[in-house]
Amino acid sequence: MKTDIEISQSAQLQNINEIAAQLGINEDQLEPYGKYKAKINLPFSGEKNGKLILVTSINPTAAGEGKTTLTIGLGDAFKRINKSCAIALREPSLGPVMGIKGGATGGGYAQVAPMEDINLFFTGDFPAITEAHDTLSALIDNHIHHGNELNIDPRTVTWKRVVDINDRELRHVIVGLGGRTSGVPREDGFDITVASEIMAILCLSNNLDDLKQRLSKIIIGYNYDREPVTVGDLKVTGALALLLKDAIKPNLVQTLEHTPAFVHGGPFANIAHGCNSILATKAAINYSDYAITEAGFGADLGGEKFLDITSKALGKRPDAIVVVATVRALKLNGGVAKDNLDEENVEALLKGAPNLGRHIKNMKQYGKPVVVAINKFTSDTEEEINALTDFISEQGVKSYTTTVWENGGAGATELANELVKACDNDDPFIPLYNDEDDFMVKLNSVVKKIYGGKDVVLSSKAKKQLTELKKRGWDKLPICIAKTQYSFTDDAKQLGAPKDFTINVRELQPKLGAGFIVVLTGKVLTMPGLPTHPAALDMDIQNDGTITGLF
Amino acid sequence: MKTDIEISQSAQLQNINEIAAQLGINEDQLEPYGKYKAKINLPFSGEKNGKLILVTSINPTAAGEGKTTLTIGLGDAFKRINKSCAIALREPSLGPVMGIKGGATGGGYAQVAPMEDINLFFTGDFPAITEAHDTLSALIDNHIHHGNELNIDPRTVTWKRVVDINDRELRHVIVGLGGRTSGVPREDGFDITVASEIMAILCLSNNLDDLKQRLSKIIIGYNYDREPVTVGDLKVTGALALLLKDAIKPNLVQTLEHTPAFVHGGPFANIAHGCNSILATKAAINYSDYAITEAGFGADLGGEKFLDITSKALGKRPDAIVVVATVRALKLNGGVAKDNLDEENVEALLKGAPNLGRHIKNMKQYGKPVVVAINKFTSDTEEEINALTDFISEQGVKSYTTTVWENGGAGATELANELVKACDNDDPFIPLYNDEDDFMVKLNSVVKKIYGGKDVVLSSKAKKQLTELKKRGWDKLPICIAKTQYSFTDDAKQLGAPKDFTINVRELQPKLGAGFIVVLTGKVLTMPGLPTHPAALDMDIQNDGTITGLF
Repeated sequence: MKTDIEISQSAQLQNINEIAAQLGINEDQLEPYGKYKAKINLPFSGEKNGKLILVTSINPTAAGEGKTTLTIGLGDAFKRINKSCAIALREPSLGPVMGIKGGATGGGYAQVAPMEDINLFFTGDFPAITEAHDTLSALIDNHIHHGNELNIDPRTVTWKRVVDINDRELRHVIVGLGGRTSGVPREDGFDITVASEIMAILCLSNNLDDLKQRLSKIIIGYNYDREPVTVGDLKVTGALALLLKDAIKPNLVQTLEHTPAFVHGGPFANIAHGCNSILATKAAINYSDYAITEAGFGADLGGEKFLDITSKALGKRPDAIVVVATVRALKLNGGVAKDNLDEENVEALLKGAPNLGRHIKNMKQYGKPVVVAINKFTSDTEEEINALTDFISEQGVKSYTTTVWENGGAGATELANELVKACDNDDPFIPLYNDEDDFMVKLNSVVKKIYGGKDVVLSSKAKKQLTELKKRGWDKLPICIAKTQYSFTDDAKQLGAPKDFTINVRELQPKLGAGFIVVLTGKVLTMPGLPTHPAALDMDIQNDGTITGLF
Repeated sequence: MKTDIEISQSAQLQNINEIAAQLGINEDQLEPYGKYKAKINLPFSGEKNGKLILVTSINPTAAGEGKTTLTIGLGDAFKRINKSCAIALREPSLGPVMGIKGGATGGGYAQVAPMEDINLFFTGDFPAITEAHDTLSALIDNHIHHGNELNIDPRTVTWKRVVDINDRELRHVIVGLGGRTSGVPREDGFDITVASEIMAILCLSNNLDDLKQRLSKIIIGYNYDREPVTVGDLKVTGALALLLKDAIKPNLVQTLEHTPAFVHGGPFANIAHGCNSILATKAAINYSDYAITEAGFGADLGGEKFLDITSKALGKRPDAIVVVATVRALKLNGGVAKDNLDEENVEALLKGAPNLGRHIKNMKQYGKPVVVAINKFTSDTEEEINALTDFISEQGVKSYTTTVWENGGAGATELANELVKACDNDDPFIPLYNDEDDFMVKLNSVVKKIYGGKDVVLSSKAKKQLTELKKRGWDKLPICIAKTQYSFTDDAKQLGAPKDFTINVRELQPKLGAGFIVVLTGKVLTMPGLPTHPAALDMDIQNDGTITGLF
């Protein structure tokens, strides 16, 4: 069996100009980065208003759901049924690439390419975000060091530093040591780049002006009078925007079947809002008849955030929603150990299926058609597939078995045909909450209507912060909940569809630039660590460019 | 008067394919990054063996010497006299770009373009070096955290972290706080990316194999038995090389007059070896008849290091050397205050001229022809130019007045014609020292024959380190002295041509990957800080892409 990188590197890619030509993007609008990658200049020339399909999934498990793979294969399937289509995806973070095997560019015969570039720096967007973020950090401490005109209290600086690496050693640090010429000592910490507010801002901005507006509102900390200090106060909005001048432009690549894919931006869905950039989705909508976008992790995280935050900023709601599920993942949810997933076990499957059931019910609440894709693995038996199909049917939605990993676009044409029909609807979109709702009403909406919990409890710190939010009127922003991706609850080990649980809120973080309040629940970390045997140990490149160990 | 960015943005650039075609580089070998930048794939197809011209200068001053501007204008002048020519330059570090006004892409009508890209990330080389460097840091601490099989003593980790930002707050930090799940507490610090050994390695490598060899030799610290631990021991050479797979390829851009310029790599010359990559210079040599390369800061730093380290690794010695001087800088060396440089002052000029005199004498020691370029400013008077010309003539070398800032290549054609003649020589190259010489002999060679000092004194720490170096046989490597760029001495305030001074060595750092021993003198910092009013405060970009405040 070929590895993903072997399949990818043996594919005959088309020059990126040809991919752009498919969409009617002319050369003036295209900034090629090598032969197979390009950035699209703003504003877009495309004037289509394509249908929008959101791909989301059950809670992810160690078994792998193949949501990105399905999204890519689905794009190829639309192409095979002769529909103009473009995909919008997030770009991978380098941190996990060096840590755990498994890229973010699909797999098998449903990949975006060139995967070795997309997984490593790509067109430099994440480095630009990292640099902009840390330049702001340096400018803050420089301001304090040189007289501190804004009267910033160094103990209240909330703007941490970032690196795009899983580096637990940097979670909690003390900076500014070494005497009076080397800054002011204070506590600090590093997050991973995908958790940066600048990542969220870049992904929610419609153009450079919008980006600047949002950057200027970032709160970096508080002064000694306990008033917030912003990027605008520091007068560095322009410099940060300048550092992001290319990063804001969406990237165009192709699938192995030459379907156009806009791969741009990548906030994690557990600690951030989890969707590719608005500009990538907008490009797909403006230049094609069917735009397919994927949201990170399960429908409780990336899905909910796409529907309640991103699609609002985008100004376009999805016309249909696909929920991806696998027999293996549901068996795992039903209590089967990871090593026994190859064995048929209909009982465990049906025990885990309520996880899917709840996600289907959740997505249906938004008023738009929902379809399930059963992403088939070779170990799945006919009995299992039939049992799952029946279960889904009982939830009142259709399902299709897909085999894109093995067969590329040919493995999802039935699903594509169904989605063409499904997208042809005028069903009104029903938001989960209104931004003007009381903060606790909004929080309860997500906890009860999406997670299926019975209650939400704020820590004393969070309670104090809510009083502060209300005082400043910031409670009227949407909420972005940071929660483990593995469970509906805030405890990664509670699989399936748990009931009667309480969500524990640790902290509230106002992200005025992104335009939402981050709600930190449970133990979710904003800086991951590397495992005992990091993937980096098995990577290599030869003098002729041959790469090994990159998935 | 137009600003540099206005001149640059109003220039009609040629498509990078056309620039490559000038050099006979075909499209297969070219990886375009946008319309005006490209990377050149390895190995090179060019089979020329062009002449090599090194451009260096007097000690830099706040008055500005315009060495990069002269190098660019000289390339354009070669083109104007119908010689096939390519320039090799370092790429700018973002740290200083955000700090002090003044780019690294030339000025006036002698610039490389597009300057707004070259000065900001360019093709992503520095982000890749930063990421590779900090990934190594994370892997080291991860190794210690997960059982520490190599028995690394955390107190002896010499591999610091880096950011490409002037951030004094990160010079001295404590990392690994927060309890047992967040690493092992230890002292650490951040350098600026250009001081990274990986930057030096990238710039001294001939291909990926060479890069890997060098990476594997990096010493990251010592184990509890006081034996060195290397990147090879950690088994992460391949992963680091993979992260650098594109960064190792030289970048091609153009001057405003469409002369090809390879802009690649950028170690600072005060804290590192200060030359563009070997592969950039090699590309210029392989694809053109005249390759012009610039070394950082004065001839005592970048110049000496190019001649004693870089050109050896390159396998090609320069055929001629240009020393750049200005009337203004020499007046400043002669004691004139910066604000009074516009006033004619022949006496001060002649008082400062011995700085140039010593650099001329130094460069002549290497056996190759030396020519001086007097980079003329509008404030220079005829009296001053004549006095300086006479002084240079007394040193036994020719000089030419150049006006490339105002006139582009037309401002240096006489100098170009002279260099064509000068390059036609078989004079043997005379190295300053041999690597096999005793360490103190090598150190004394540079201190006495280049700096003009009378003595060199090692701190007790450095003495102990020298004993260690000798024990391990590392003392047979060339030396790379880190010293202030403003003076021949290790004190930035001693201008002109001081005598009878002592160089104080603080510390010796074995850089086995780069292949040299760094000798830290005086107070030179490996992490700069930002000024009270950083350049970032004046930068902006409009929705239509118009940039202001970037020089």
